Amino acid sequence: MTIVPASKLDAADPLARFRSRFVAADDPAVVAYLDGNSLGRPLAVTGERLASFVDGAWGRGLIRSWDAAWMAEPVTVGDRLAEVALGAAPGQVIVADSTTVLLYKLIRAGLSVRGDRDEVIIDRGNFPTDRFVVDGIAAEFGLTVRYLSAPHASGVRPEDVTAVLSERTALVVLSHIAYRSGFIADMAATTRAAHDAGALMLWDLCHSVGALPVELDACDVDLAAGCTYKYLNGGPGSPAFGYVSARLQEQLRQPIWGWMGASDPFAMGPQYEPAAGIRKFISGTPPVLAMQPLKDMLELIAEAGLDEVRRKSVALTEQAIALADELLVPLGATVASPRDPAERGSHVTVDHPLFAEVTAALWEQGVIPDFRPPDGIRIGLSPLSTSFAELERGVEAIARELRARTAA
Amino acid sequence: MTIVPASKLDAADPLARFRSRFVAADDPAVVAYLDGNSLGRPLAVTGERLASFVDGAWGRGLIRSWDAAWMAEPVTVGDRLAEVALGAAPGQVIVADSTTVLLYKLIRAGLSVRGDRDEVIIDRGNFPTDRFVVDGIAAEFGLTVRYLSAPHASGVRPEDVTAVLSERTALVVLSHIAYRSGFIADMAATTRAAHDAGALMLWDLCHSVGALPVELDACDVDLAAGCTYKYLNGGPGSPAFGYVSARLQEQLRQPIWGWMGASDPFAMGPQYEPAAGIRKFISGTPPVLAMQPLKDMLELIAEAGLDEVRRKSVALTEQAIALADELLVPLGATVASPRDPAERGSHVTVDHPLFAEVTAALWEQGVIPDFRPPDGIRIGLSPLSTSFAELERGVEAIARELRARTAA
Repeated sequence: MTIVPASKLDAADPLARFRSRFVAADDPAVVAYLDGNSLGRPLAVTGERLASFVDGAWGRGLIRSWDAAWMAEPVTVGDRLAEVALGAAPGQVIVADSTTVLLYKLIRAGLSVRGDRDEVIIDRGNFPTDRFVVDGIAAEFGLTVRYLSAPHASGVRPEDVTAVLSERTALVVLSHIAYRSGFIADMAATTRAAHDAGALMLWDLCHSVGALPVELDACDVDLAAGCTYKYLNGGPGSPAFGYVSARLQEQLRQPIWGWMGASDPFAMGPQYEPAAGIRKFISGTPPVLAMQPLKDMLELIAEAGLDEVRRKSVALTEQAIALADELLVPLGATVASPRDPAERGSHVTVDHPLFAEVTAALWEQGVIPDFRPPDGIRIGLSPLSTSFAELERGVEAIARELRARTAA
Repeated sequence: MTIVPASKLDAADPLARFRSRFVAADDPAVVAYLDGNSLGRPLAVTGERLASFVDGAWGRGLIRSWDAAWMAEPVTVGDRLAEVALGAAPGQVIVADSTTVLLYKLIRAGLSVRGDRDEVIIDRGNFPTDRFVVDGIAAEFGLTVRYLSAPHASGVRPEDVTAVLSERTALVVLSHIAYRSGFIADMAATTRAAHDAGALMLWDLCHSVGALPVELDACDVDLAAGCTYKYLNGGPGSPAFGYVSARLQEQLRQPIWGWMGASDPFAMGPQYEPAAGIRKFISGTPPVLAMQPLKDMLELIAEAGLDEVRRKSVALTEQAIALADELLVPLGATVASPRDPAERGSHVTVDHPLFAEVTAALWEQGVIPDFRPPDGIRIGLSPLSTSFAELERGVEAIARELRARTAA
């Protein structure tokens, strides 16, 4: 297969113009940033957004800004995120906490209405924090964790889940896009299978939100959580988001009762009275400063259109695989991500035993993919900030470093 | 008693020069900011700090900055906080989560080593989130919450706690400084009383950290948590901090198992293996961007000296009470904070049935105390940013608005 030159692909890319909206897009020291699936680049407006927040809403509005805007932001920013990227009606998403803490709260909340069931299903290939949270909850409440046997190397298919679902299953916890292979799970069919067995379904959206359209309401999802520092470019450790279907909000109880989840936070009353709707899933004071950068990225995605974002994501991953086949496979590397773009998210994983040291060498040169044990380089492709030229430079650099180590 | 003019007090104040380090210190639209005990003003350097963080460590360091600095920051910033403001040796403090979530984790951790005991002691006057978290945990694990009868209107004394301690007490949860009255609890004696009964002691430091010296190690405290957006000026919803005595770290287990609390977060291993030391109390990805503003304030406190900060805090609260006695008490208001400065933190609460509407009117004029139900105005005094002139303008404005409503 002949590789289409990057210059041609960039020239034809309708989203190419968005690249200049990001910090350091043309900094020659950042040769190729291929890890936007771990930490998205900041938008160029983000520094100014934060500085004017400090000088304005915080520095001059002071405590009054809580009433004026901030109290509402976990839900208003959540609603905008729901509309732009999650396929969810208003009133079902909050921005709060870390992904880990929200997973804990939502898993516990899900279990609170399935008290007669004692099993949680999870995949061994799920992201560690998801597995650890489930294991911790299982340990404290004496639940059984049922791991999927994962016959498919790349990811979990509905039939894998159906095979272990039973009348003991309280909850199924899976990643929509596998953090290692990039495999996209079938959200609709898997959720249906969980429901058919009377279980609730929780999706981890860390690797999908902002990279492709997600349809939580249409797929009848119960619970979801994800981070905002990958394809939503919220910054290191930016707050997570949680989705609780409106169907379930009244029944569910979350365990961390705090003043900001109370019906009237400033009543300072004697008893915790949970707020109505999604607000009761909030616990402490919302991380307002930290959720500012995210807002601009949501508007950028809305401007570009998530279908266009997905189209470019597919083009980028197709190109990454073509380049890997041409330059890396002959050196002994293997493509670990699905070759069918319909099954693939916005990163491509390539394995080679020497990739740990290759990655370390590349980082020093400003070529920045990431490494996932035991031997995978993840080539993360952020459709709004990654150019085809950048991708090409990156894979060529991987090849160069690998060649230097494999040439006898 | 004759009121010393503010101009004289400001002229003699060795910390007066620090006021100009804060945003809008001389903005005539902010007539008097008396709510730094809810949300501290930003430092003037904070906007620039954030903008250069966006452009540098985030925008150009990109994912590499996790290795270079960010992974360590929950503990390195925690260690600096411990040194500057908490009287704690290194390796006992993390910056993470919200106060509410950390309270949940630390209370659960404390209970994990007192499994044979089934009571938690708390004060009805404690901040709502502390009471709600305890009530939530009690509800899920069938514990009994024993409320202090609080015979002293202003706050909890060691004998109040001793009266309810028993061999059933697992944990005592109290605020070091009462959010409403500003009463300072006797940390050493109360902790000793809890220990004498075989219980653990957790202190909420939200209203003390940064306003006066705290001596966690010397007082033999077990657990503590607090926020960083009051006297540490971290910004709205900035991350909380948690302290776990080195004595206890090995025994304690916290319930929210996440990848960042694992011994090797990037091993992505099959099992959760808690990190050694304080790191295991971390759960999710650290809120790195949101902990940047805090760092500069810690250095400012170190530069000023916490003993000097406390000295000015006492002078400010003394002046606030003198002004209240002169201007507000004749209008029917009462001072609800302790009159002995040794028993008083850095805010003064004054009660009057009309203060809800008075506060609303004042906010529109740029005079900004806060209101706590049922009828208290809290005059919060941030020693490094509040001037005596600002305090005087504020209390005079309260008097003016109150007089307009009480004059027959």
